[in-house]
Amino acid sequence: MNFMLKLGLAAMLVALPQLGLAQEATATAEAATPAAVPTDVVFILNSLLFLIGGVLVFFMAAGFAMLEAGLVRSKNVTMQLTKNVALFSLAAIFYYLIGYNLMYPLGTWSVEGILSGVWGPGVLEAVGVTAEDADDYSYAATGSDFIFQLMFCAATASIVSGALAERIKLWPFLVFTIILTAVIYPLQASWKWGGGFLDEMGFLDFAGSTVVHSVGGWAALAGAIILGPRIGKYGKDGKVHPIPGSNLALATLGMFILWLGWFGFNGGSQLAMGSVGDVADVSRIFANTNTAAAGGAVAALILTQLLYKKPDLTMVLNGALAGLVSITAEPLTPSLGAATLIGAVGGVIVVFAVPFLDKLKIDDVVGAIPVHLFAGIWGTLAVPLTNSDASFGTQIISIVIVGAFVLIASAVVWMIIKASMGLRVDEETEINGLDMAEMGMEAYPEFSKG
Amino acid sequence: MNFMLKLGLAAMLVALPQLGLAQEATATAEAATPAAVPTDVVFILNSLLFLIGGVLVFFMAAGFAMLEAGLVRSKNVTMQLTKNVALFSLAAIFYYLIGYNLMYPLGTWSVEGILSGVWGPGVLEAVGVTAEDADDYSYAATGSDFIFQLMFCAATASIVSGALAERIKLWPFLVFTIILTAVIYPLQASWKWGGGFLDEMGFLDFAGSTVVHSVGGWAALAGAIILGPRIGKYGKDGKVHPIPGSNLALATLGMFILWLGWFGFNGGSQLAMGSVGDVADVSRIFANTNTAAAGGAVAALILTQLLYKKPDLTMVLNGALAGLVSITAEPLTPSLGAATLIGAVGGVIVVFAVPFLDKLKIDDVVGAIPVHLFAGIWGTLAVPLTNSDASFGTQIISIVIVGAFVLIASAVVWMIIKASMGLRVDEETEINGLDMAEMGMEAYPEFSKG
Amino acid sequence: MNFMLKLGLAAMLVALPQLGLAQEATATAEAATPAAVPTDVVFILNSLLFLIGGVLVFFMAAGFAMLEAGLVRSKNVTMQLTKNVALFSLAAIFYYLIGYNLMYPLGTWSVEGILSGVWGPGVLEAVGVTAEDADDYSYAATGSDFIFQLMFCAATASIVSGALAERIKLWPFLVFTIILTAVIYPLQASWKWGGGFLDEMGFLDFAGSTVVHSVGGWAALAGAIILGPRIGKYGKDGKVHPIPGSNLALATLGMFILWLGWFGFNGGSQLAMGSVGDVADVSRIFANTNTAAAGGAVAALILTQLLYKKPDLTMVLNGALAGLVSITAEPLTPSLGAATLIGAVGGVIVVFAVPFLDKLKIDDVVGAIPVHLFAGIWGTLAVPLTNSDASFGTQIISIVIVGAFVLIASAVVWMIIKASMGLRVDEETEINGLDMAEMGMEAYPEFSKG
Repeated sequence: MNFMLKLGLAAMLVALPQLGLAQEATATAEAATPAAVPTDVVFILNSLLFLIGGVLVFFMAAGFAMLEAGLVRSKNVTMQLTKNVALFSLAAIFYYLIGYNLMYPLGTWSVEGILSGVWGPGVLEAVGVTAEDADDYSYAATGSDFIFQLMFCAATASIVSGALAERIKLWPFLVFTIILTAVIYPLQASWKWGGGFLDEMGFLDFAGSTVVHSVGGWAALAGAIILGPRIGKYGKDGKVHPIPGSNLALATLGMFILWLGWFGFNGGSQLAMGSVGDVADVSRIFANTNTAAAGGAVAALILTQLLYKKPDLTMVLNGALAGLVSITAEPLTPSLGAATLIGAVGGVIVVFAVPFLDKLKIDDVVGAIPVHLFAGIWGTLAVPLTNSDASFGTQIISIVIVGAFVLIASAVVWMIIKASMGLRVDEETEINGLDMAEMGMEAYPEFSKG
Repeated sequence: MNFMLKLGLAAMLVALPQLGLAQEATATAEAATPAAVPTDVVFILNSLLFLIGGVLVFFMAAGFAMLEAGLVRSKNVTMQLTKNVALFSLAAIFYYLIGYNLMYPLGTWSVEGILSGVWGPGVLEAVGVTAEDADDYSYAATGSDFIFQLMFCAATASIVSGALAERIKLWPFLVFTIILTAVIYPLQASWKWGGGFLDEMGFLDFAGSTVVHSVGGWAALAGAIILGPRIGKYGKDGKVHPIPGSNLALATLGMFILWLGWFGFNGGSQLAMGSVGDVADVSRIFANTNTAAAGGAVAALILTQLLYKKPDLTMVLNGALAGLVSITAEPLTPSLGAATLIGAVGGVIVVFAVPFLDKLKIDDVVGAIPVHLFAGIWGTLAVPLTNSDASFGTQIISIVIVGAFVLIASAVVWMIIKASMGLRVDEETEINGLDMAEMGMEAYPEFSKG
Repeated sequence: MNFMLKLGLAAMLVALPQLGLAQEATATAEAATPAAVPTDVVFILNSLLFLIGGVLVFFMAAGFAMLEAGLVRSKNVTMQLTKNVALFSLAAIFYYLIGYNLMYPLGTWSVEGILSGVWGPGVLEAVGVTAEDADDYSYAATGSDFIFQLMFCAATASIVSGALAERIKLWPFLVFTIILTAVIYPLQASWKWGGGFLDEMGFLDFAGSTVVHSVGGWAALAGAIILGPRIGKYGKDGKVHPIPGSNLALATLGMFILWLGWFGFNGGSQLAMGSVGDVADVSRIFANTNTAAAGGAVAALILTQLLYKKPDLTMVLNGALAGLVSITAEPLTPSLGAATLIGAVGGVIVVFAVPFLDKLKIDDVVGAIPVHLFAGIWGTLAVPLTNSDASFGTQIISIVIVGAFVLIASAVVWMIIKASMGLRVDEETEINGLDMAEMGMEAYPEFSKG
């Protein structure tokens, strides 16, 4: 309507002078507040969305660190914290050095570029972008897109660290992190978000149920199988011995921080906020993201009450996260009710997937594989339920292609690392805790251990 | 002045062609940067305020969870964390299903709407809002208003959970949460924020000292009286036995997160950021909110030093929160100095109200009633001190009406729940801690208990 | 290019009527979306940057509190938490009463102003700023600038509290905080940011490697020397006894919160977001800030592995923070690669500075002096490496002037406080922990001490 109004006014402006009514008409046109968003403002608001989104997703690094530190035993907390700080830092460096340019065809990556004096494969070389540059909307050149995309890449690595906790050595894990964030993640992400063949096929994955979460999950699955379960987790009699986390307050804090960050994760993936339509979409995404998390948490709460007669807090936390992962592939088209249900199914999946993995003797310390892989697959499959542009066939094929690639690539990398550096601490270290043997530092030195 | 300038330029544009000076004049008009905010930009910026505010207030759920987990004994921490995750999730679902539409007359709530296939009582049904829709400024239809309002509703429930900690059963508490967030909160909130009779009477409550905080406080008060105090809190000799919280670092973190979230709580309640005047008001609200918290903390620090010869950290934390509650009814009109004093009075109230409640044998585990109810009343009464649009009479009448309604409604609901499901865990469970008996899971299983 | 286009269109608009082609041309001009940012929108977006930045930097208060609470022994945690809440609150009040007006010449500070009825030295007196006021861009009058600047002042005080932990009394520390935030910080900050002589000399310090971080560091250094080391830290044989922190999970959380806040710290210091160029600069600052932190963390990780055969988590945390401090003086002009290296040097400095201070028997509990002072000096010196507007000479002279002023002023204040109130708790209190003796409250009362 505004556009029609504008056109109409323009037409009036042109027509009226002929009628000798120019004075009034022009005054009216000038006095009316314009509706359209100036192109520079569009650029600024889009950049701002990337920045706010990037900051929120950055904080998810803290969320993962707290969640994982809370769910491991206190003797392994220092190691888990170190891994989380180090993996984010290495992801930041290697995604910039290699990954970002691998992911986007517009990057001018070159060996020469890296070798030539200063780092910098075409990213952020320009200082002082001015209004003249706004035309090409090159968010990449300004860094706002880079900071946003980087956080997604780092999240992938955070997923892996939780699953393999309490037994993997620091440096082998970090070597895998480098390969994951420099090569594996960016390569497959380019298939969808870099305009690659999955995108051309019509695969839909709004903020990355598959591209981010299941990728982290597949890499974790490969690692968990190759690494083997923790000592004492699975008895010789086939019995599963639960190993409770040392600090559920910390784990709950981590979950809340992740939930917070997810507003940036999904909302920022709208990639634009410079029009009424875009900000309305971002708003809707916020509402759907929130309600999916609520759905997942409530489903896990009720289901564990029914199954075990007691609600299980760690399941509720993972249920909320699974709800978030589930809505990530399509947070825009569902109604609030549909989003709640999609999240709730994610919560149900987690409650059943955790014992299922245990049956397979795959030891995932924090439940990262149920949350990020299984709920990620569900979320990707759920897209066609509310978005008619998606097809089940394409979604399934894409899940399989990404899954096969990441599972195989990760397995190969894990095997090479295992053969060359070794992956796992020795038995004594694992029993005594990784913190003293590997880090020389306890996380809670003054509190006695149970 | 800008508007006059604009009108003047428009007049020039019209007049000058007659004088044969059209060329220069038009060029000048085109080259001058316009001042006015295009209507689409207003829509975007207002939505953005709701979204940023909503995200900040969302994080208050984590703040309440950490504050409460830190102030209960370690044997009840898992329960307290579970309650906080579950209450927020249930609030998200039931405020959407019922509460939001009850609160705002513009909602098109209907039994048919809920029953018909997809959920959705008129909220967020439209996908892809476009520029044409901007005219009716329907933030509700896009979800930005919904996400902001929801967080206020959830905060109300968080207040209750702290006061009743360490003795109430999970499910009865959650049933109350559902009724509070679906019916009690939205109904009374509609009287003020839905354009109801309190609003028409001239009641002023900018961001909810009464509508949110005292409502949580009244519901908590009814619950605390009906539930009775914790075992061992009040000796037979009338002596009060302090029960220290298990983790003051967590409690302090919770307070800081709440303080952070309050910038969104009060600043977002400006409801608009699309004009110079609005963003200036938001800025002022930020400054006043911050200084009121500081005033409350410093007042409690000095007062506990004077009264008890030692400053009391939990009082300082609650003093800051009371300062925040106090400024919530009117964060815009006070000067910085007045805001500091309003907050400081809140801090003083807390220091005296905590022992006062103990004298009445009303056991409020975290001090939620002093902070949210007493300081909420004070904040509401303080509005006429700096805002001449408010009158003491109307403020008092409104406090009484809201208080009577919430206290009575809550008491009735608590009594019905008590009679039907039971409210309180048995004595053995309470002494051993709710975590093992009710949840089967300790929050800190490896650390010995005192 | 947009500007040229606009001018061209304007010219066309004027020329075409003469040619009888007015109708089409005008329609085109009206239909084309304008590019330029309306002045009111500039005002709004600039204010918004201050507000978002201010909120993020506010949260750094929580980051410092958690970092410090995690790095002290559990017997001193309540004291450390109380100090952090109190110092922020006092900074908020005294920076408003005195500091802000001392720092900026535009403040209308006067004794009369303070004494006259309501507080308020010219700050935030105007309610309801309207479009007419936008012309003078007085962010100060609206509070957005105030809230942003206040957070920097408070950060300075937070730095001091960490270094002097576990032995300083509460009230003497708070008296120093008041003088630091009311006088010492604002005075020297005005030399650069208030348009004073360092600014005129050409000193460059974008977000305060010197003005904020080294100032906190110098004040801490003076205090640490005058206060002396903790009992048991340095043996009579010259041996250094490490005193491990009680909660590394909390310390890691604190580091992540500080990293998060630094996006606001550095990004907000662009002071403007209302043009394409400004938001592009903010984006670049975000990317550089993040990568510098990563560089600092990775450098400390690798270096401690090489030096001690085990990576040291507390060094990694401080390495990340040192990376952040290092990039703070110039987060805009470096390329991503240069920013990574600048941060990495900061991480290296920390690893060597911590044992260096121990050799001098200067006991800095959390490593605040290496992180904020040493890396702050490095960051200030690094400006000319990437910004040709800076000169090493001016940077060095400015570092020396600020350093000499703050070190001497702080030393004098510390000495006066020591002589009048005393600075240090008695030996018995220090050995038993400050919490029971000074605060009467343990932070973790249910967990046994090691």
